[in-house]
Amino acid sequence: MKELQERIQREGQILGNGILKVDSFVNHQVDAALMDACGREFARRFANLGAAKVLTAEISGIAPALTTALHLGLPVVYARKTKPITMPDQVYLTLAPSHTKGRMVELIISPEYLANHEKVLIIDDFLASGATILGLVRLAEAAGAKIVGIGTLIEKTFEGGREALKHLNIPVESLACIASMDDGKIVFSE
Amino acid sequence: MKELQERIQREGQILGNGILKVDSFVNHQVDAALMDACGREFARRFANLGAAKVLTAEISGIAPALTTALHLGLPVVYARKTKPITMPDQVYLTLAPSHTKGRMVELIISPEYLANHEKVLIIDDFLASGATILGLVRLAEAAGAKIVGIGTLIEKTFEGGREALKHLNIPVESLACIASMDDGKIVFSE
Repeated sequence: MKELQERIQREGQILGNGILKVDSFVNHQVDAALMDACGREFARRFANLGAAKVLTAEISGIAPALTTALHLGLPVVYARKTKPITMPDQVYLTLAPSHTKGRMVELIISPEYLANHEKVLIIDDFLASGATILGLVRLAEAAGAKIVGIGTLIEKTFEGGREALKHLNIPVESLACIASMDDGKIVFSE
Repeated sequence: MKELQERIQREGQILGNGILKVDSFVNHQVDAALMDACGREFARRFANLGAAKVLTAEISGIAPALTTALHLGLPVVYARKTKPITMPDQVYLTLAPSHTKGRMVELIISPEYLANHEKVLIIDDFLASGATILGLVRLAEAAGAKIVGIGTLIEKTFEGGREALKHLNIPVESLACIASMDDGKIVFSE
């Protein structure tokens, strides 16, 4: 998506260690209009999958998941990273490494909001190693739900996430694919 | 707002200790269409304040803040509760008690995204004691920004938040005001 690529090129900051800072429009400050445009684009690409729910992980996944859900007319479920007191004792829980936190984080979903055989579309901000998304896949599978598609705003193609998701045999769509960030330059693959 | 009140009446669960569980449409599963309607209503009520930015706290504030920002044509900034590695060393940080976590949490904003004299509209999911919102107010004031309005989805009027915010002398709007939750019954004040 041209609009997103241009914004990344203009405002994205390479912090080293494979970290791309997009805090001015995705991860701390959020450009609502841009997120809406991204949600519309995901909705267009995933329109025919019959998804009943959009699944994401707090925190940064919420904005693009919400706008996608809005355009598809679906609810969102976001996996929590700490169990709130409103959640039942029995939950689906898995661990995933967090790139930006440098440690393992929990991903938790209440069985109340993921049903057996439910078709689920995963939306997240980044596709890097795919570890967070694979965590969401495990949670969905534990609930008996079926992942029908995966969409991310920004894919770092050099971190292998797409290969890690290949065995799922479902469409994986990223709105901006970064092929390299060497020498402080962001190079897109499309 | 009738639509929100009806949903709270139908799906809200009183867990005791003043906790209202609305995880099926606000706090874990999110009804995107309802959030959009709430955002539209906030945008209508706060249209004339000249806000340049919507401010909220992760995690549950993000959805209503985003839809409000969308309808007002503004960006959102959400205060982080843990400092990500993408954030500069020097930040605005304050502490606020979390009702649902039963402990103090940090609220952190990067100086990059709150400017001196910037007019800011605060949107959050709950107004209970007002402690989280007062935390956001302190962060905004530290940045020299000016809070021009406060909007929350659900106000528990019996927890004193509105009084705690009164000294700010700005409009405080809640879309559903709960006057009591005694005997397992949710009673709205409007």
